[in-house]
Amino acid sequence: MSYTEPRLKALALNATLKPSTSDTPSSTERLLSLISASFSKLNVQTEIVRLSEHNILPGVTSDEGEGDDWPAIRQKLLAADILILGTPIWLGQLSSIAKRALERMDAFLDEMDGEGRMVSYGRVATVAVVGNEDGAHNVSAQAFQALNDLGFTLPANAVAYWVGEAMGSTNFSDLEEIPEAVTNAIDMMTRNAAHLAGLLQGNNYPGEEET
Amino acid sequence: MSYTEPRLKALALNATLKPSTSDTPSSTERLLSLISASFSKLNVQTEIVRLSEHNILPGVTSDEGEGDDWPAIRQKLLAADILILGTPIWLGQLSSIAKRALERMDAFLDEMDGEGRMVSYGRVATVAVVGNEDGAHNVSAQAFQALNDLGFTLPANAVAYWVGEAMGSTNFSDLEEIPEAVTNAIDMMTRNAAHLAGLLQGNNYPGEEET
Amino acid sequence: MSYTEPRLKALALNATLKPSTSDTPSSTERLLSLISASFSKLNVQTEIVRLSEHNILPGVTSDEGEGDDWPAIRQKLLAADILILGTPIWLGQLSSIAKRALERMDAFLDEMDGEGRMVSYGRVATVAVVGNEDGAHNVSAQAFQALNDLGFTLPANAVAYWVGEAMGSTNFSDLEEIPEAVTNAIDMMTRNAAHLAGLLQGNNYPGEEET
Amino acid sequence: MSYTEPRLKALALNATLKPSTSDTPSSTERLLSLISASFSKLNVQTEIVRLSEHNILPGVTSDEGEGDDWPAIRQKLLAADILILGTPIWLGQLSSIAKRALERMDAFLDEMDGEGRMVSYGRVATVAVVGNEDGAHNVSAQAFQALNDLGFTLPANAVAYWVGEAMGSTNFSDLEEIPEAVTNAIDMMTRNAAHLAGLLQGNNYPGEEET
Repeated sequence: MSYTEPRLKALALNATLKPSTSDTPSSTERLLSLISASFSKLNVQTEIVRLSEHNILPGVTSDEGEGDDWPAIRQKLLAADILILGTPIWLGQLSSIAKRALERMDAFLDEMDGEGRMVSYGRVATVAVVGNEDGAHNVSAQAFQALNDLGFTLPANAVAYWVGEAMGSTNFSDLEEIPEAVTNAIDMMTRNAAHLAGLLQGNNYPGEEET
Repeated sequence: MSYTEPRLKALALNATLKPSTSDTPSSTERLLSLISASFSKLNVQTEIVRLSEHNILPGVTSDEGEGDDWPAIRQKLLAADILILGTPIWLGQLSSIAKRALERMDAFLDEMDGEGRMVSYGRVATVAVVGNEDGAHNVSAQAFQALNDLGFTLPANAVAYWVGEAMGSTNFSDLEEIPEAVTNAIDMMTRNAAHLAGLLQGNNYPGEEET
Repeated sequence: MSYTEPRLKALALNATLKPSTSDTPSSTERLLSLISASFSKLNVQTEIVRLSEHNILPGVTSDEGEGDDWPAIRQKLLAADILILGTPIWLGQLSSIAKRALERMDAFLDEMDGEGRMVSYGRVATVAVVGNEDGAHNVSAQAFQALNDLGFTLPANAVAYWVGEAMGSTNFSDLEEIPEAVTNAIDMMTRNAAHLAGLLQGNNYPGEEET
Repeated sequence: MSYTEPRLKALALNATLKPSTSDTPSSTERLLSLISASFSKLNVQTEIVRLSEHNILPGVTSDEGEGDDWPAIRQKLLAADILILGTPIWLGQLSSIAKRALERMDAFLDEMDGEGRMVSYGRVATVAVVGNEDGAHNVSAQAFQALNDLGFTLPANAVAYWVGEAMGSTNFSDLEEIPEAVTNAIDMMTRNAAHLAGLLQGNNYPGEEET
């Protein structure tokens, strides 16, 4: 079946605010690791990039000049079939680092291939969200709209998330056991993403008609 | 102090999808009852109106004609100092019944008093949200924006909410005990709303300058 | 090519607040008519249902009992390959009638086929939005998130919209000429939706693994 | 009247992605300048800070250590009675730089004064938004919710914005004349903000009751 094809590649962007050297583990990293493991059972290889380790300059072009780390990340993104935008929730919203990455993809709106399609076309996007207590639906709404405007296709149930009870403060990284509902949602999401990426591979959207 | 004035009145709109005859209790009603009790300690009288019991016709005027129950509710709303929009969360969003009430208030945009201010000016609005697992921040974002566009003033921390763990199915109406965080949030919200409504009472925003 | 297959069917839900008997034309209807014409060039047949003409009871099940018109609409929806949710913008948000339809689809979350997939799986959804001056991105964000949670797949650039300048009051139905940007966006959306629906037809997502 | 008091101070944060050295003018700066002029007619002094000129480190505390420019901006913010969050629209959403500033204010949630109130209490917040074509309502929704959670009070009609026609590309900085609707909205917003800040000055919200 198409979703077990070995040639699919996924790129996960971890938009945590924390550097790798932080004393506290990244809950987003934990969720992305679970997604990566789920993808690997479907023969999809996932690379995780922690954005806070890179100098992504503000702007809306693909290269903002000297010192800008975005061009290399963009290269990985366009080499992948599946994008996973992983973000923590702050104030019920996605992180400024996730927002920065989306802004840099704004350049896709003007970057067309030979058939008048955005360079991002044919790729599938999913979202991974973790927070203490609320906000996953708002984060996925904002991310879905931005990613879809940017040319990505969203498979059914394109989000995996965890939040705790209202106004609580437990972190996903603190959980001793992963709730079964989360595991099931991850497996459904990766299954759907791999299936759809398989279908689009070699069957990209048609360009503008020339006749 | 102004917030203990006995003359403040609050109107709570319960936008649950359930009729009063439903076998299952309304979680939104439970939250609004707690808010009402908190307000009464500040000498604010609260009336709760369950919108599903009324025939609120679609439209964006203050009276959509025969059979429309909105004009009577609008009357209560304009007689109150504080509005509480109470809504359940479905699909991470506010209910269609909450949305209907907001649409009917759209008429305020064209209804000015003698000084060129919307008839809603001088009133304070707050939001009460309950769901199983996520969505309170999105609901308050959508509600705050709509209510603020409609002329209402939002006191600090103008929302009280409860949601459970991600993908859970416990209802607020099922909780044996109200979490302290919820009680504290309710008390803070009512305290702030009553204080601000007290300040605005008799000190409404200035109209357009005539000079 | 798959997107010219004659067997694809689209269902457009017009969530205008206006009844068909309204003196003023529905801008949403105009946009949906353009989308329907664009689809017909791709051999996709579109049926438009004006929801305000139907009695859709509040609730989150597929049948809310006597007098409920939703079951018949749901039937059409499940018989179609492509759903178009058409809505006007009020207060920068989607209409209460659009919200009502989404709430009724909430039932899909518990309605599984023989392989553990929501009954909506394999269908593509798009969004059509019209307003005077602002709000299309928020409407598509809310709609995308709800529709994706409900099992629909979103093709690249899954929204067609029109709004005028900030705080303006021109209606889409008043425009003498359709702006080229709108026509292009419609054609791109229908092309993408038909292509993706073609790919998913006969290649639905895999169900839960049985081994 | 209170809103003409000379002692009110406003701080405007310009969250444009552009540095001051950019060849193209900042539309956000233009809108903030108009707001500043409107405030000065009410004897409110406004300082505009262009955030892109400062090194605001990622994080959710008030001081993220060496090289962090946030502490100085935070100081200005707490010295002001009114905050104006000015942001451009990218992808229908607020900028990553606006998001960064909000994240840094997340620290307010744990910073209480002697009476158990967030240090931000008693301050009024407003929002200024500019984009080419759509998104102002979504930006104000996200900003209102974040700012209100952070302890700010929102006066009636707390947003001034401009966007052009759908999918257009005119910038606010290119307009030869400011539309009257924008001027009126600015004047209404500054009038309301100054009035409410005047009322709250010396009448801050009550703290937690001690009895």
